[in-house]
Amino acid sequence: MKYFPIRSKLFVLCLLLISLFSCQPKEKSESNEDRKPNFVIIFADDLGYGDLGCYGHPTIKTPNLDRLADEGQRWTNFYVAANVCTPSRGALLTGRYPIRIGLATNKRGVFFPDSGGGLPTEEVTIAKLLKSKDYATACIGKWHLGHLPQFLPTNHGFDYFYGLPYSNDMDPTTDLGHYKACLDPKIEYFNVPLMRNEEIIERPADQTTITKRYTEEAVKFIKQNKEEPFFLYLAHSMPHVPLFASKDFQGRSERGLFGDVVEEVDWSVGQIIKALKDEGLDKNTLVVFTSDNGPWVVMDQHGGSAGLLFGAKATSYEGGVREPAIFWMPGTVQPGVVSKMGSTLDLMPTISKLAGTSLPEKEYDGYDLMPVLKGEDTAPREELIYYHGTRVFAARKGKYKAIYYSNNPKGYPGNVQKLEKPQLFDLLVDPGERFDLAEKYPDIVADITQMVEEHKTTIVPVESQLDKIIQN
Amino acid sequence: MKYFPIRSKLFVLCLLLISLFSCQPKEKSESNEDRKPNFVIIFADDLGYGDLGCYGHPTIKTPNLDRLADEGQRWTNFYVAANVCTPSRGALLTGRYPIRIGLATNKRGVFFPDSGGGLPTEEVTIAKLLKSKDYATACIGKWHLGHLPQFLPTNHGFDYFYGLPYSNDMDPTTDLGHYKACLDPKIEYFNVPLMRNEEIIERPADQTTITKRYTEEAVKFIKQNKEEPFFLYLAHSMPHVPLFASKDFQGRSERGLFGDVVEEVDWSVGQIIKALKDEGLDKNTLVVFTSDNGPWVVMDQHGGSAGLLFGAKATSYEGGVREPAIFWMPGTVQPGVVSKMGSTLDLMPTISKLAGTSLPEKEYDGYDLMPVLKGEDTAPREELIYYHGTRVFAARKGKYKAIYYSNNPKGYPGNVQKLEKPQLFDLLVDPGERFDLAEKYPDIVADITQMVEEHKTTIVPVESQLDKIIQN
Repeated sequence: MKYFPIRSKLFVLCLLLISLFSCQPKEKSESNEDRKPNFVIIFADDLGYGDLGCYGHPTIKTPNLDRLADEGQRWTNFYVAANVCTPSRGALLTGRYPIRIGLATNKRGVFFPDSGGGLPTEEVTIAKLLKSKDYATACIGKWHLGHLPQFLPTNHGFDYFYGLPYSNDMDPTTDLGHYKACLDPKIEYFNVPLMRNEEIIERPADQTTITKRYTEEAVKFIKQNKEEPFFLYLAHSMPHVPLFASKDFQGRSERGLFGDVVEEVDWSVGQIIKALKDEGLDKNTLVVFTSDNGPWVVMDQHGGSAGLLFGAKATSYEGGVREPAIFWMPGTVQPGVVSKMGSTLDLMPTISKLAGTSLPEKEYDGYDLMPVLKGEDTAPREELIYYHGTRVFAARKGKYKAIYYSNNPKGYPGNVQKLEKPQLFDLLVDPGERFDLAEKYPDIVADITQMVEEHKTTIVPVESQLDKIIQN
Repeated sequence: MKYFPIRSKLFVLCLLLISLFSCQPKEKSESNEDRKPNFVIIFADDLGYGDLGCYGHPTIKTPNLDRLADEGQRWTNFYVAANVCTPSRGALLTGRYPIRIGLATNKRGVFFPDSGGGLPTEEVTIAKLLKSKDYATACIGKWHLGHLPQFLPTNHGFDYFYGLPYSNDMDPTTDLGHYKACLDPKIEYFNVPLMRNEEIIERPADQTTITKRYTEEAVKFIKQNKEEPFFLYLAHSMPHVPLFASKDFQGRSERGLFGDVVEEVDWSVGQIIKALKDEGLDKNTLVVFTSDNGPWVVMDQHGGSAGLLFGAKATSYEGGVREPAIFWMPGTVQPGVVSKMGSTLDLMPTISKLAGTSLPEKEYDGYDLMPVLKGEDTAPREELIYYHGTRVFAARKGKYKAIYYSNNPKGYPGNVQKLEKPQLFDLLVDPGERFDLAEKYPDIVADITQMVEEHKTTIVPVESQLDKIIQN
């Protein structure tokens, strides 16, 4: 800030005070029309790019999501910021790459029950930001950003938490091994706790009713908060293995149990939309649906599909990080199919803008997507860094993606190796990453590589949260 | 037919004459409401399961087809009867497997400019069937069922033909070779003729305007025949290589030239629907959109995508023979996504039923799909034989597909080998044919194999049309 003499400073202070007081009555008398918008983020777990009807799956029936896509925007180049759970969620909630927030290492990809770390309390989540604007906030579903008390949702800006502190396949109690236990699952194989705020209320959580109960809690939260602006972060545990559906959905889908589970999530979306409509909140609520990473394909029929994309969960090929994404807000979001780039990193700035607040003084990695959502022909996001742990696996600028490492396209067992020469793909023409153009366009590779180097200069080393283990 | 004495025959003849005369006035006075329905079959060429927006392609924009799918039925288990062009088209137009109509050999898969055969004139096409009910009929686009005069559309029940007699990549004039000529195409590389009825009117056909001109011809045919029932078979040459788009579409699609070409086909669909609406024929016209076989993936970026399916054109894996399929007839076709089985073989019986005619005395391989189209929860088709030439590559019964041969999943070069043991896939759970269940369910394999054997007993050997070469 430039230097101002004392007298000027007093003058500015007076102006600020006047504007503050003159604004206040307007704030208090706001009608329903100029009420701040509500935000609902529905986040699936391990759902692949090809796992919804409106993204081409032949037998998974998702009429509620298909309708949402019809009435809203269906994005086809929408990304998460990491290819596994914990860093992907941290990035969504903070708008910052996982490497900035201590959630990137090359050892442990996610938090486990013996983890001692969590999303650092100095990070500002969407919930914490909205609290400054008097939003009611709830995290319902899977957290996975640290389960020690100081890291729980209620210490990250959420008024309310109901859900699992980490993944539904953790705390194993069986000798079957992870794969067998997941593919023929029983509730008692996974001693994962269900929490309300800071209390464990059920252990093991009865996962057969977990989607149903998350939904009931979410609808209750909407109805309880219909008079004030709210932020609902509904992070489903499904369709992450072990798959469990409630009685109404067991055996319902032609796709088998995976389909049952996705169809129950789809039903849940329908219930949320119904609640918003019942309360007359649909035109004043931005609903976003997406998932945390690509399909866990090594889980056989219990894993999803990336459709025509290459790769899977735990890879930074497109199949690992490009996700179904639907934005819905009737009257505001212009219906259509959007192939511009977007990222969960963009939710923080988009929501911040819509809520009329501003971002804290930090390095942010997202863009306000509202112009696109409103139907403007503009592309706020032109680039993306694809991290794999702390490594820049690949980077995209415009339509081109340069890839610097190789990996097992199925994700597990991981085998990340530096490539001798980067590869280059035109993702608009070749979304399946089949035709390497690096030799044809060395300048584009060089340009993207320079972009990566510039990005790296913005990274400030922070303590790794993922490597902290609780010593018993 | 059983024996009738002469007196009975006279009696039957009298009855027929009476019914003929008593029917005639009703026929003449029929109002627009009880007019026989019109039929429009739009048939793309080498379009893959994953190449439309509503089937999940990220960057090919197909708003007209997406709208058709929304307002009509989008089928996700719809098949062609062969994995290459000629036999697939023959099966669609006759309702019979290619092996019954001389269009299956293990040497030549399709007709070439030196071919001397064609769809036998004793075969009854949909057009010929509808002529018996006074339909106006037109074949606009690619024929590929024999180009000697006796085999042309006008000798197969079509009043009018405008289009190419065979594929747009034939009659090469360049030494570049097929692959290079197709991937960097020029009109003059392919000396393919454009015909009107039996006359060649342009050679080489200017393919840059081919989709546009097919569309203009189709719209003209609709407008000229708005007072009488009609059958329009609009068989686009695109997106078969060499790809050509008109000026309005060149460079329009993010997907590159392949996308330009598909988006022009989508535009064409919009023009057809507009013409039907303009003439008030939309509620009285069944529109079917599908394609002849899967994507020609070895054509690199000029080939399409089978989405999450395995295989490609020239294979009988799902990617080779499962196609996008949209049925539309507002007020009659119940909107929705349909995962029941259907086939182009079913168009003949479905159309026959709707037109109030009956099928000739032949062995048919299709089913009337109208109950499903009207929204009934029934499955007329429960089985499918997947031919590769004369070989039964695979067979599907209900959700299970038994596979008897292996092949190069890319289709070219073909490498069809008998498997030591059949494979078995649950196509509803596993559309990508990843998890072989043959060891788990030997009884199901045996049951399908028995079905195949029973099917084979219905095959009467006929002369191969594909092996006939013109001797110069």
